[in-house]
Amino acid sequence: MASSGTPLRDERIAIIGSGQIGQSWALLFASAGFKVSLYDVNPENVTKAQELILQLLQYLKKENCLRGSLPVQVQYDRISKADTIDACVNDAIYVQECVFEDLELKLQLFADVDKHIGDNTIVGSSTSSMLPSALSKDMKHRHNFLVVHPTNPPFFARAVELVPAPWTTPEVMGRTRELMVAIGQAPIVLKKEIPGFVLNRMQFAIVGECYRLVKKGVISVDGCNKTISEGIGPRYAFMGPFQTAHLNADGFQNYCDRYGDIIYRVQQSFGPPEKMEGELVQQIQNELVKKVPLDKLDERRRWRERRMAALNKLKTELAQQGQNATDSGK
Amino acid sequence: MASSGTPLRDERIAIIGSGQIGQSWALLFASAGFKVSLYDVNPENVTKAQELILQLLQYLKKENCLRGSLPVQVQYDRISKADTIDACVNDAIYVQECVFEDLELKLQLFADVDKHIGDNTIVGSSTSSMLPSALSKDMKHRHNFLVVHPTNPPFFARAVELVPAPWTTPEVMGRTRELMVAIGQAPIVLKKEIPGFVLNRMQFAIVGECYRLVKKGVISVDGCNKTISEGIGPRYAFMGPFQTAHLNADGFQNYCDRYGDIIYRVQQSFGPPEKMEGELVQQIQNELVKKVPLDKLDERRRWRERRMAALNKLKTELAQQGQNATDSGK
Repeated sequence: MASSGTPLRDERIAIIGSGQIGQSWALLFASAGFKVSLYDVNPENVTKAQELILQLLQYLKKENCLRGSLPVQVQYDRISKADTIDACVNDAIYVQECVFEDLELKLQLFADVDKHIGDNTIVGSSTSSMLPSALSKDMKHRHNFLVVHPTNPPFFARAVELVPAPWTTPEVMGRTRELMVAIGQAPIVLKKEIPGFVLNRMQFAIVGECYRLVKKGVISVDGCNKTISEGIGPRYAFMGPFQTAHLNADGFQNYCDRYGDIIYRVQQSFGPPEKMEGELVQQIQNELVKKVPLDKLDERRRWRERRMAALNKLKTELAQQGQNATDSGK
Repeated sequence: MASSGTPLRDERIAIIGSGQIGQSWALLFASAGFKVSLYDVNPENVTKAQELILQLLQYLKKENCLRGSLPVQVQYDRISKADTIDACVNDAIYVQECVFEDLELKLQLFADVDKHIGDNTIVGSSTSSMLPSALSKDMKHRHNFLVVHPTNPPFFARAVELVPAPWTTPEVMGRTRELMVAIGQAPIVLKKEIPGFVLNRMQFAIVGECYRLVKKGVISVDGCNKTISEGIGPRYAFMGPFQTAHLNADGFQNYCDRYGDIIYRVQQSFGPPEKMEGELVQQIQNELVKKVPLDKLDERRRWRERRMAALNKLKTELAQQGQNATDSGK
């Protein structure tokens, strides 16, 4: 979290694409005092985005959730509109791409960016599904390229995955890592690329098993949700699966000695992946809309954000109570 | 959570086995005002357990985490020592078995319990690994039998899995469900038995994929932990995987339309289960002890409990702020 006394920084960050993810990135960098240039192929979208960012800043102030110590107007003023890609990335130390998930669109964009950046500019893509090698293979500056994948909702979830292409230099990985720490995010550094990266692979492992359990008639949709929110989730809010196993026995080695066989047998009973489609998807949606109707999704997203912001604050407070000797992260 | 003004109840609960899980169950029932009979094959263990329960109650009071409104001494006095199984289960409305995870031991115990209980007494096993059918098949009262599996640590994690044998009656499932709600736990009702039940299946799915990612050299042990504690965990503290998917697109149907293919492909790239054993387990333990040495496991467990208690309190407070219209659980 950006600490009190946030400095105004001279370095410029380029954000390309002004949708929800672009807005979140702009806000994160501006909150940490960076200058932000925001570009969109449709200039009206930037104006609209700036309005939404101001609204979000005012909402965050009201909820006492602003990051860093800069006032709303100062944070807002850090973000300016760029009229061309050249003007956006020119002199930027870092470019964050946030356009639609379309391979051709991104390839074309990166070819363009490649022409206008300096030799030290790092280029990060927000993609959740494309490998950095596929996105950067034809770039002159491909050694400066990586995927920088935020977690949804980016302003409230700290994890950011840094995924290198085979040619990304360690120095670029290191600088990006430091930049993410500087804006208060929690960088997760992958050593090499893999489909789904790491966070989504874990998430797909869980949602995949939940889907099979519902299909097998073992449990309801609501039961799956509650098993997480009242069972695994409260532990995972503070520690990961390896540390959880470490504590649930006399260390991880002992955990594997005691439960390794049964864990292996249970995993073998999972069966193959199921494609989520057809009638069962409809049934699951029918269950879900009973609690969260489709016209209340946005309201529920705000519900989630408020809770995640409150949890962040709680974690910071607890870490400050002098109990962080063995604390991972915070 | 037991609300203010906890009543003193006349019904008696029998707890068999006075280790950590038995102590937690005794405390949960006593906090809700039930009379608790605690039995252990070694009577000295019960005396020791009662001392530990008193210490825990005093700690909980100090941390402002007591459940319900009964004073420490009143909660403590609800728990009495039973000298025989007969005396323990006699007149009990509910028996919670918490002995060592040994099939023969449990079978022998349930044969004994079976002789002394009334026709309306429900028998729940705390087992995390044995199927209710295997545990109860020879019991006369097997229609009153189920697995009632708590989450670790039981006093701080609300989820409790209720797993029926094929012969468990719906009425018994319903009464046990109500009992769990009465003591402030969150019952997860399975429709039929399955190895690992539900919570551990989800947990094994995640830890299995983490283990493979470390083995493949994609990410460090610490990186896996942080992906959860800073990425997925803060969301899962408040909502399960289906509702998360529902919010991360325009509903679950739309989520599957948009991401179903890629989720399926990523799941296919997981590869078969890996048995957690040998050198890699040692390497993972070596990483883990850098943050949490083996002689600090208990201290870290207290660290986790404090955080989970604070999260519970936060969730209760947020739910009371009139935003619980679409809230699942709390």
